[in-house]
Amino acid sequence: MPDRPVTIRDVAAAARVHPATASRAMNPETRVLVSDKTARRVLRVAKSLGYRPNPMARTLRTRRSHTVGVLIPDLTNPLFPPIIRGLEDRLADVGYVALIGNTDGDSRRERLVFDQMRARHVDGFVLATARLADPLLAEAERDELPVVLVNRVTEGYSFPAVSVDNECGSQLVVSHLVKLGHRRIAYIAGPQDVSTGPSRLRGFTAGLESGGLTPNPDLITYAQSYSIQEGVRCTRELLRTREPWSAVAAANDMLAVGCYAVLEEARLRCPEDVSVVGFNNMPFIDRLRPPLTSVSFPHYQVGTEAAQLLLERISGKGVDAGTQGDPADAQARPVKLLLLAPELIVRGSTAAPPCRQTVREGQQADTAPGA
Amino acid sequence: MPDRPVTIRDVAAAARVHPATASRAMNPETRVLVSDKTARRVLRVAKSLGYRPNPMARTLRTRRSHTVGVLIPDLTNPLFPPIIRGLEDRLADVGYVALIGNTDGDSRRERLVFDQMRARHVDGFVLATARLADPLLAEAERDELPVVLVNRVTEGYSFPAVSVDNECGSQLVVSHLVKLGHRRIAYIAGPQDVSTGPSRLRGFTAGLESGGLTPNPDLITYAQSYSIQEGVRCTRELLRTREPWSAVAAANDMLAVGCYAVLEEARLRCPEDVSVVGFNNMPFIDRLRPPLTSVSFPHYQVGTEAAQLLLERISGKGVDAGTQGDPADAQARPVKLLLLAPELIVRGSTAAPPCRQTVREGQQADTAPGA
Repeated sequence: MPDRPVTIRDVAAAARVHPATASRAMNPETRVLVSDKTARRVLRVAKSLGYRPNPMARTLRTRRSHTVGVLIPDLTNPLFPPIIRGLEDRLADVGYVALIGNTDGDSRRERLVFDQMRARHVDGFVLATARLADPLLAEAERDELPVVLVNRVTEGYSFPAVSVDNECGSQLVVSHLVKLGHRRIAYIAGPQDVSTGPSRLRGFTAGLESGGLTPNPDLITYAQSYSIQEGVRCTRELLRTREPWSAVAAANDMLAVGCYAVLEEARLRCPEDVSVVGFNNMPFIDRLRPPLTSVSFPHYQVGTEAAQLLLERISGKGVDAGTQGDPADAQARPVKLLLLAPELIVRGSTAAPPCRQTVREGQQADTAPGA
Repeated sequence: MPDRPVTIRDVAAAARVHPATASRAMNPETRVLVSDKTARRVLRVAKSLGYRPNPMARTLRTRRSHTVGVLIPDLTNPLFPPIIRGLEDRLADVGYVALIGNTDGDSRRERLVFDQMRARHVDGFVLATARLADPLLAEAERDELPVVLVNRVTEGYSFPAVSVDNECGSQLVVSHLVKLGHRRIAYIAGPQDVSTGPSRLRGFTAGLESGGLTPNPDLITYAQSYSIQEGVRCTRELLRTREPWSAVAAANDMLAVGCYAVLEEARLRCPEDVSVVGFNNMPFIDRLRPPLTSVSFPHYQVGTEAAQLLLERISGKGVDAGTQGDPADAQARPVKLLLLAPELIVRGSTAAPPCRQTVREGQQADTAPGA
């Protein structure tokens, strides 16, 4: 080791690349401009030489771009536009704009968009795409990126998050159905690798139990994604079970829309034969035939609150000035998790179970849905 | 062979292409942006000259950001997500990602997002926000930015564009209503400062005329924006006119959704009392009560075609290599305007006019809508 500190030039020479390339490889924001192989070689060499980035480089990174990257899992889900509108409005107040990336639930595309946004120097991220085990979040935490999660949250990371109280929302659904007289309630669960899946499912089973009912595993199906298509597949699955059911709760509205399509196909009337409930109260859902009973939460406010939390993160507000940027301290701070209260909006898709259904309950009726 | 190492310029000269083209052909990531024939020639020449890519040159070549800025006027309009999905899929084929900006029809926000995207060095723009007199487009043309317009087109600029044949679409609507027996057809026109407004209105009046009917200015209202809210306002206006009408065509589906709400409020049944037609066949519109008759076009394909045209623009393909980048030449080329054929999807919102209506026609009936 030389006496003087190791410079980026030393790293470049040892890695047999141009200093500019070495520099790009060292900076997570520009790493995407270098081939993976080269980046790995540069990082390996840098580590072996004991290279420490110049704190000045760090300062340069704090030049603000006044843009925020927003990753959403599915642009065709009408839930997201009002959230984004709230985000954008709050950001616009301070001259920030949102660059929106659609990942289509595809982790390869998510990675590509995320890397490109980093390379474009966004000041922070709002992620509606968080998975429970998410390599992207691990990286964001390691690199101390300002990140706020919306809708989907995750455990074990130090990111602020804004969502709805999902368990409570599902309990409202079940309690409504039980009050109407339903005893055999099917459930289309969301994907279990994002937080809304398990938490809404927990709320569903808790709701059954507090209504004196026992969850029946045969009446729970699992969607792979929050899509109309998966709603179709899961409802078909429920119609094939031997267990009768008179109501179905879907973990979100897109799944419920798929459910509508299958019921129509099967000539089952909603709500006369089967009650259906969704979750999210997304735009247009009140205009379906029949209008869907769903769990509502203030979408626009989710957006404004998330923007506010992100701006706090970006500006370092809420962090003691002296310790700003110290990851140990940042982690020590309590991380804000803002849960907005859900509300059940009762519409035309739920009603008392059909009389024959009630009579036949437990008789394995042939014509009941799911028989 | 010269003493100095062979450069990309030497290869380009020998292959009779622009250095940028040669560079693209040499880089596997960008080769797709060059025609197969050219790529093969460049590779052959490079091999024969013993050209070895300079790693630094490689970096410079990747100055491309591989991102495209997409501006859409209203994220809450379900028309745009499938277009964006088409765009993204085609862009992903060549490693590009789309950064989406929502302008909410606000020209100040549009300018902010556009400027931020330029500052973030996007390689080109797809704009769904074009106005007929648009300072942003004037600037894009002056600065020779690669731009493609979708949905809304504009005259007098040299931008490729992908849209639907709007006049033809409106004519299909009127012809359908006339065939059902409607003679008094109201129209909710779109905003007249974006191309779809006037072109759909032209199609509407042309349709009336070819059906032997005379356009009645009292039965045409003008929406300020393509929104549910404006559909509500315009339908209320139509209900206040002294002229009776038995059907209303809306310049887009969002306006028609607003129309539905007002008819329900006024206790007018659709289609028994009033027929309603939309335009765009946006997602979810088939699930409304009643399902909306609308003009369809291939949204996803609009996106893929636009992406294709933009990639051509970015790569300079279609421009002779020697003159690449010369704006005079670029303008001399014919600009592609791709109009996809519309199709009328007839659903439950249109039917024959009520008998009493037909009888009363011209009698200024008191109970007819709009009386």
